[in-house]
Amino acid sequence: MARVLTPRAEDFPRWYQDVIAKAQLADNGPVRGTMVIRPTGYAIWERMQAEMDARIKVAGAENAYFPLFIPESYLRREAEHVEGFSPELAVVTHGGGKQLAEPVVVRPTSETVIGEFMAKWVDSYRDLPLLLNQWANVVRWELRPRVFLRTSEFLWQEGHTAHATEADARAYARKILHEVYEDFMVGVLGIPVLVGRKTAGERFAGATNTYTLEGMMGDGKALQLGTSHELGQNFARAFDITYSSATGGVEHAWTTSWGTSTRMLGGLIMCHGDDNGLRVPPRLAPVQAYVMIVKDGEGVGEAAAKLRDALRDAGVRVGLDDRVDTPFGRRAVDAELKGYPVRIEVGPRDLAAGNAVLVRRTDGSKTPVAVPDVVKAVLAALEADQQALYDEALKRRLDRTVTVGTLAEAIEASATGWAKVPWSEVGPAGEKEANGQGVTVRCLISADGTVPDSEDEPELQAILARAY
Amino acid sequence: MARVLTPRAEDFPRWYQDVIAKAQLADNGPVRGTMVIRPTGYAIWERMQAEMDARIKVAGAENAYFPLFIPESYLRREAEHVEGFSPELAVVTHGGGKQLAEPVVVRPTSETVIGEFMAKWVDSYRDLPLLLNQWANVVRWELRPRVFLRTSEFLWQEGHTAHATEADARAYARKILHEVYEDFMVGVLGIPVLVGRKTAGERFAGATNTYTLEGMMGDGKALQLGTSHELGQNFARAFDITYSSATGGVEHAWTTSWGTSTRMLGGLIMCHGDDNGLRVPPRLAPVQAYVMIVKDGEGVGEAAAKLRDALRDAGVRVGLDDRVDTPFGRRAVDAELKGYPVRIEVGPRDLAAGNAVLVRRTDGSKTPVAVPDVVKAVLAALEADQQALYDEALKRRLDRTVTVGTLAEAIEASATGWAKVPWSEVGPAGEKEANGQGVTVRCLISADGTVPDSEDEPELQAILARAY
Repeated sequence: MARVLTPRAEDFPRWYQDVIAKAQLADNGPVRGTMVIRPTGYAIWERMQAEMDARIKVAGAENAYFPLFIPESYLRREAEHVEGFSPELAVVTHGGGKQLAEPVVVRPTSETVIGEFMAKWVDSYRDLPLLLNQWANVVRWELRPRVFLRTSEFLWQEGHTAHATEADARAYARKILHEVYEDFMVGVLGIPVLVGRKTAGERFAGATNTYTLEGMMGDGKALQLGTSHELGQNFARAFDITYSSATGGVEHAWTTSWGTSTRMLGGLIMCHGDDNGLRVPPRLAPVQAYVMIVKDGEGVGEAAAKLRDALRDAGVRVGLDDRVDTPFGRRAVDAELKGYPVRIEVGPRDLAAGNAVLVRRTDGSKTPVAVPDVVKAVLAALEADQQALYDEALKRRLDRTVTVGTLAEAIEASATGWAKVPWSEVGPAGEKEANGQGVTVRCLISADGTVPDSEDEPELQAILARAY
Repeated sequence: MARVLTPRAEDFPRWYQDVIAKAQLADNGPVRGTMVIRPTGYAIWERMQAEMDARIKVAGAENAYFPLFIPESYLRREAEHVEGFSPELAVVTHGGGKQLAEPVVVRPTSETVIGEFMAKWVDSYRDLPLLLNQWANVVRWELRPRVFLRTSEFLWQEGHTAHATEADARAYARKILHEVYEDFMVGVLGIPVLVGRKTAGERFAGATNTYTLEGMMGDGKALQLGTSHELGQNFARAFDITYSSATGGVEHAWTTSWGTSTRMLGGLIMCHGDDNGLRVPPRLAPVQAYVMIVKDGEGVGEAAAKLRDALRDAGVRVGLDDRVDTPFGRRAVDAELKGYPVRIEVGPRDLAAGNAVLVRRTDGSKTPVAVPDVVKAVLAALEADQQALYDEALKRRLDRTVTVGTLAEAIEASATGWAKVPWSEVGPAGEKEANGQGVTVRCLISADGTVPDSEDEPELQAILARAY
């Protein structure tokens, strides 16, 4: 059989591109760096959105929508912010057939425009906290684009909140970090993210502190899957977000922002994919069980439709493939590529024996199951394979993370995985040295593995790795 | 009491702006013509999206996402299309700190870029129909912007499909028109839309036929709430969307496109709003029942929470207002403004008598209801008021539509409502004359009120009106 994908061990980046093309997840757009998200890919994104959005609402934030176009002058108000984003801006100079008096930028992120409206809407401490989120597209011009990972336009959610105190802002940035992002990534995406704190050098432009969630990909590199920022009073000062306090004074608010994007689709592929294609964790999968008619025959169509209905009634997201004029082998390869967690193959021979064949994408196992037992078997497989994918990813992260004592060892270890090294051995100077060799400090964690409160805690550990 | 809103009869456009500001639905954005959709407004849009998206999926279309940026050259490929959209384009000339070799436009609509990918993805007749939809922002520079109705950026869904035959394309454009748009607008939005066919002069730029859904607003003007287009083979030729047919020939596909937008929020306000604010039809409302604690007292908080839980358990979307340190009168005015269909007021005095007060936004009625009967009473009120809002809007449309025999009468009647006049009395020349006086042909309908198959049918009726 002709091979469908470049094997991961041969060329991981090539394999990644192959999966995206062959599983019909996305295409490159006509303008350099942009992408087209095809239905198979977009259905996964919709599931990500639904799961994330529910958690964001439970955390108390409300969805809103702010303009795509931001006056250029807004970005200049926060010095670090404009410095960080200027090189990546797309600028609209003409609108409605005329040159614009002031050019507008296409939002690279919305702290500035949302800050302007927070200032309008916040008056008293009673208006705080103000908890907003938006689902939107943003544009950051990319010189070395790669689909899902670095694209000039991407889709994301960006949360923006204002609080009366620093403590409240910090608590909320951490609530999002753990209760929304970590909960989703571990529980649904099945990625054992490492949660930590960015160094000053890796912070978001304009933040006083950035929390991050880092996943290890199949090749041992790191991917930042989400960030949550404390912005201190930087944007509150730049946009005059003030409130009258309970005691009558006027104070600047404390703000946060936090985001996750279609980049998570890249993480999904690179964390769980194998040489046969994508493997989608069952809780995430738009199609959890895929009923396939192997070929026509007595009662086959009816049996397949019945199984589809029974699975749907049991709460399983189910698809039915009855394209019997396409060779079964080709359809099975396609189902592998798209990573449906469980296939139920229904054909005349097995059916005559009262069986369907349950194929699990995670381990490739094929088991004949008596038709009346299929629903139960599918539910059990979905539950088990969610865990199996997580366990496999966790094992890889543990196996490929080494604890070392010096910066040199850490940089060396980053060739094949992650290195944990005392931050005191690295420091800002060592970080620069590592960066020069293509290695970054992904995050700092406390000695007990938790997220540190500051960069000055004793015994901080740095995680060094190559990253996407 | 100081009046909260300008009365509709005094100044309808001013009333509209007042509602948007006071109900906190939206704000003007900093770049002219853009808008900020605030949480109260966005929650309604999310409900519109959910209801529409479910219907779109039932109709077989799959969601995808195409780039915001389109090469300028794409638009030029279809002559009428570029002519129609050129005056409204926003153009990006700089990206990543450099002038771009080819300027890119911010999508005003996506026929062109989607056409390019349809051509890539469609190979054989087996790949047809190709049924796509996307939820996205689009930009059309507006000289006279008005929030929700005409904004330089707005949110919408745009469907794009390709078919093997003209008949199939037409059937699908009509399926969307009736089974998605009309079904949603009538059944959920509660707007008795008139469904018809646009004249050649009012067609979408590049379409061979445009179907429309027109609503009558509170001032008798028309608002186009959605359109579904047959594009013939225009875009298929421009983008080379071809397929090999079952008999082996190569044919151009037939395409459609169809869209509805945040403009529906404007229609909602102007169709159902009254002098106290918005009235949201129950099936649409993000908050259907709003439990309000009038003031603190023995058992009041517990009773309110219990009612909230009981309503939620009965499938009602419910909110709880326990901000007892804000005067009740102010909170009640706010609830009126935001148009929650039903309020359940819980206070110490009524509670002592075993009652809560059920307030219906539609007719303003206030009825004491025994606490154990509240859920049943709320469900009944929601059902009845969905119908009541529709009936009221339909009565207005019927009362304010006059049947006349000449163009002059039709133009005159358009001062206060809609005019129905034989299309043979108007024709392209009469249409131009009407346009000169601010009156447009909203649509053509058949003598029996159905949607005509062509502009040449005998006894076509034209609906003339002033429009937003």
